[in-house]
Amino acid sequence: MTPETIAAGVRSRIPAWVARAITLVESTRADHQIRAQELLALLTPDAGRSHRIGISGVPGVGKSTFIDTLGSDLTAAGHRVAVLAVDPSSVRTGGSILGDKTRMARLAADPAAYVRPSPTSGTLGGVAKTTREAIVVVEAAGYDVVIVETVGVGQSETTVAGMVDTFLFLALARAGDQLQGIKKGILELADVIAVNKADGPHVVEAKRAARDLSGALRMLDDGGGWVTPVLTCSALEETGVDEVWAQLAAHRAQTDIAGRRRAQQADWMWAMARQAVLTRFETHPAVRATAGDVRQRVLDGSLTPAQAVQELLASYDR
Amino acid sequence: MTPETIAAGVRSRIPAWVARAITLVESTRADHQIRAQELLALLTPDAGRSHRIGISGVPGVGKSTFIDTLGSDLTAAGHRVAVLAVDPSSVRTGGSILGDKTRMARLAADPAAYVRPSPTSGTLGGVAKTTREAIVVVEAAGYDVVIVETVGVGQSETTVAGMVDTFLFLALARAGDQLQGIKKGILELADVIAVNKADGPHVVEAKRAARDLSGALRMLDDGGGWVTPVLTCSALEETGVDEVWAQLAAHRAQTDIAGRRRAQQADWMWAMARQAVLTRFETHPAVRATAGDVRQRVLDGSLTPAQAVQELLASYDR
Repeated sequence: MTPETIAAGVRSRIPAWVARAITLVESTRADHQIRAQELLALLTPDAGRSHRIGISGVPGVGKSTFIDTLGSDLTAAGHRVAVLAVDPSSVRTGGSILGDKTRMARLAADPAAYVRPSPTSGTLGGVAKTTREAIVVVEAAGYDVVIVETVGVGQSETTVAGMVDTFLFLALARAGDQLQGIKKGILELADVIAVNKADGPHVVEAKRAARDLSGALRMLDDGGGWVTPVLTCSALEETGVDEVWAQLAAHRAQTDIAGRRRAQQADWMWAMARQAVLTRFETHPAVRATAGDVRQRVLDGSLTPAQAVQELLASYDR
Repeated sequence: MTPETIAAGVRSRIPAWVARAITLVESTRADHQIRAQELLALLTPDAGRSHRIGISGVPGVGKSTFIDTLGSDLTAAGHRVAVLAVDPSSVRTGGSILGDKTRMARLAADPAAYVRPSPTSGTLGGVAKTTREAIVVVEAAGYDVVIVETVGVGQSETTVAGMVDTFLFLALARAGDQLQGIKKGILELADVIAVNKADGPHVVEAKRAARDLSGALRMLDDGGGWVTPVLTCSALEETGVDEVWAQLAAHRAQTDIAGRRRAQQADWMWAMARQAVLTRFETHPAVRATAGDVRQRVLDGSLTPAQAVQELLASYDR
């Protein structure tokens, strides 16, 4: 199958061709990767016209139900919605985050939606690379809302923030005064925060938590113009999801998306190049052989960190 | 002057020898750097027994007055206090942050205190390296509280967080509901936050801002055990500074300092090594010649980022 054939299939908006294209860009085989890059170069002129939305939250926060509800509302309003997953922890959590499409039953059966399970495990860098490329594929296939789902584990949020226009975090308010699922570091990345499962006996605490966090965030405004709103919703009862969408749309309208994407592309190119250069260094046999020894000598004080660096670099250059 | 002579002078706690030792570790001359590393290896066994405290805040937040008040209280209580500065922006702000010792008039005249101006400009990495090494010098000279002052600019807070036991951020509460001097990203680094200049007409808004931020931080507890307290104080009126010190001391008592420092040493060694490897790559003439061109082709869509990386690496390897 030539890249030209696959590109034509993707542009004709046939899901089976979209799936085939994403499978190609996810492949780690060298010959596949060359064809994948040719395919992406063909599709790129047709890509870029979606609202790219990252959605994150810890397991149990209700991401699937939320995406199912939001996505169905959007297709009902005439949008075409693609859902992709970045799952750096599929090994740890024992399976693909979206492996079971029944998690998004309505959306999976919706002809205007495309849900892509991501069974890929392994390095986050690899997952992120193919997710970025999958975005290009689904955009070329005419999906105008692309949702990238990730679990709140390790670096995955930072990685996803680097590839979307708007980042939504879902949290939970439960007994006590803890907001589950929002770590301090996330406040910098979040464009919109929604306290989900604000239903039944939890409505009051969810609203109070949202109000308190909202106040603190207003106080901490970094002067960027956009103040992260904190809302409540219940994806299950389908309340408040439309207000969350309104804020996602407002964020995009008030942001210089073209500028943000240019910066993301350049950052990504350099991040991949730096990672490649560092991997060479860190996996170099002589560096690895030296590292444990100099680290120990730094810890016991017989070597300063600066001297240790000289030894590591010398072993790399030998 | 041999490193042994300088080391003996530092251990004898004579400020002039401390100053001479720091000047040596700050020197960029190659022969000085070799002697500096010998000196540090000699001093390291006597170092490590201080409480290392980072203090940051935007210009105007009252850092100097705060450090002057806190430091004087501490020497009155029998401590020996050293103050060092990390100033990545001395060029931009038009002078050394501590160049004028009169900014800390009481402490500068206090025989139990040592205030070190840091006129060094240039790369933050360079400043951070010599600040880490200056900490070793003042610890070997018997200062048991070491304050590292930095301005809230760019990466300086992250860098300083990597070299101290406890990080204090100073903020201001003023008209409106803005808390000046605390960005979202800082919440992850701060062990203690103090709203300074809580005096005169500002007491009420300072206390309200502290209470609101404190509530939000309690809500966002990352499960690490320590919940960042938010206090109010007035360094000028000398109110609340003792409570801030109590929280700094409580943080140190509840933290595995030895473990934190071991992790910092290893992080620092690798950070310096990685920086050296990346600098070679990024300053390589062929890489620089290629970079602008491939970036443009990525932006106009004729090259995918992955292909761009291959071109950059190929130019490096040629």
